Amino acid sequence: MPAQADPSTRGPIVALGEIVVEIMAEERGDGFREPLTLRGPFPSGAPAIFIDQVAKLGHPAGLIASVGDDDFGWLNLERLRRDGVDTSAVRVHPDHVTGSAFVRYRADGERDFVFNIKNSAAGQTRITAEAQRLLSGCAHLHVMGSSLFSFRLIDEAKRAIEQVKAQNGTVSFDPNVRKEMLNIPEMRAALEMMLQYCDLFMPSGPELLLLTEATTEDAAVAEILSLGVSAVVVKRGSEGASFHDRTQTLHAPAFAVAEVDPTGAGDCFGATFVTCRQQNRSVADSLRYANASGALAVGRRGPMEGTSTFAELDALITARS
Amino acid sequence: MPAQADPSTRGPIVALGEIVVEIMAEERGDGFREPLTLRGPFPSGAPAIFIDQVAKLGHPAGLIASVGDDDFGWLNLERLRRDGVDTSAVRVHPDHVTGSAFVRYRADGERDFVFNIKNSAAGQTRITAEAQRLLSGCAHLHVMGSSLFSFRLIDEAKRAIEQVKAQNGTVSFDPNVRKEMLNIPEMRAALEMMLQYCDLFMPSGPELLLLTEATTEDAAVAEILSLGVSAVVVKRGSEGASFHDRTQTLHAPAFAVAEVDPTGAGDCFGATFVTCRQQNRSVADSLRYANASGALAVGRRGPMEGTSTFAELDALITARS
Repeated sequence: MPAQADPSTRGPIVALGEIVVEIMAEERGDGFREPLTLRGPFPSGAPAIFIDQVAKLGHPAGLIASVGDDDFGWLNLERLRRDGVDTSAVRVHPDHVTGSAFVRYRADGERDFVFNIKNSAAGQTRITAEAQRLLSGCAHLHVMGSSLFSFRLIDEAKRAIEQVKAQNGTVSFDPNVRKEMLNIPEMRAALEMMLQYCDLFMPSGPELLLLTEATTEDAAVAEILSLGVSAVVVKRGSEGASFHDRTQTLHAPAFAVAEVDPTGAGDCFGATFVTCRQQNRSVADSLRYANASGALAVGRRGPMEGTSTFAELDALITARS
Repeated sequence: MPAQADPSTRGPIVALGEIVVEIMAEERGDGFREPLTLRGPFPSGAPAIFIDQVAKLGHPAGLIASVGDDDFGWLNLERLRRDGVDTSAVRVHPDHVTGSAFVRYRADGERDFVFNIKNSAAGQTRITAEAQRLLSGCAHLHVMGSSLFSFRLIDEAKRAIEQVKAQNGTVSFDPNVRKEMLNIPEMRAALEMMLQYCDLFMPSGPELLLLTEATTEDAAVAEILSLGVSAVVVKRGSEGASFHDRTQTLHAPAFAVAEVDPTGAGDCFGATFVTCRQQNRSVADSLRYANASGALAVGRRGPMEGTSTFAELDALITARS
């Protein structure tokens, strides 16, 4: 399946939000109250993983973010640049450190975290002159709920969205809410606002019902489409994905793979779906590529280590068809 | 050598400053721009190590500090409480995370760091009502330069010092400055202020010349004693330590040990010297115990893992005499 549109003729896909490093515990168990063997720092942050995946597909891609002037920031910038992301709108903040997330898998597969994000450089993300320049050519903007952790950041996201909408670009939104984030009071209001704004809504399974009055999936999809959202893609991990718009519903199965590390798989799925649609691929093809992208991501350890090229996605799809 | 004064009859030694966790790279090398095998979190923070060492010697000890409501904070609180530190004046901050320090040894023995301290809970240390209560009985206050990283924290330290001085307590000061800290503009002025205030000044070797016009050690000591400082103890690691006051100069050799991890050794040395002097031990005995404490600390991996009891110090001293 060759690319169906010349990416160079399209404006970039832009993501906005947190860059962090991830530090992973080697041993399963509960939390971080004792010295453990850890592995890291790995480049991370859901919007950073998303945009890295877009760039790996050869599509123009840029990120609006903020890191500290420290090794954790430079590690991320080097990776993103190597993979082709335009980092001109990533601010290197002199007074804040790069965000970090410690993650440990419990025996039951759930995860415990210790986050340093809110008061890290990630909280200083702004629509700077460089960000406006990047957005001025932007065809599609992607925003994640995890990035909306202060009133200021919500305002910055709104500014970016309004600029992209004004130039007839489109917006996708992934609620990407972790249980630790839900106790931030601004969060729910921000998620509801994003539902009003976005063209494409991409929740993970249970998140579909998070913001609706409806209590069944079908009713929730109908309610969300009635808000003006053009399409809903529900990510279900190993159970594949579903696409809904006003005219059709499509289900696509996942590719069965041994799960090594699911962190980042939803971001890769979303990035690949958005990129394929920007390249005018069919919904069915886009879902297939997105599922392949998620499958390759869960097979690799580290949040951003599992981003893929079209050649890698084609190889998986061919091997399994 | 039994204890020479009943510690329960004396007011507590109090330290003020940062609690952090330390994450150590297993592999030597430069910085943190690639995924490494790490070990942590370890309880840390120079004032926390200092006060843990005081408590391990069976002396009344309390800490004024701030941690986040996260595993890194609870790990430290559990350790300090277990070792006998009064943590009633350690504030658990709802909106800031516990500070952290990533450390990696280079091939040449120098260390690279990535700090999250300034915007962590450690930056929110305040003289709260609980801290005032702790200080009201305090016989001796210890302050470190590493804790004076904002105007607000310098003011809080001044408040604590003034309270202790007003009740005829004494103050010790360890500049404990790392190269990463010297680019904070408030730092130098704060260190100079502390020299005016303190009774006992405890620099590590090269730090002796940091704040003086004098350029030789003897002249620097004379200059510092002329400011009203009662005594200067110069910590020289494996080369022992020197004590200076207006009447005498004493040198004491270090105990030769295999160096496993020097982090925290200077804090253990200082805590043991201050505790012994508070217990009316002679300068010579206090230096011997302090050198033993430093030696045991460099032999253990982890910043706070090497604090010692008097029984452990006596065992080392007896074995080497």
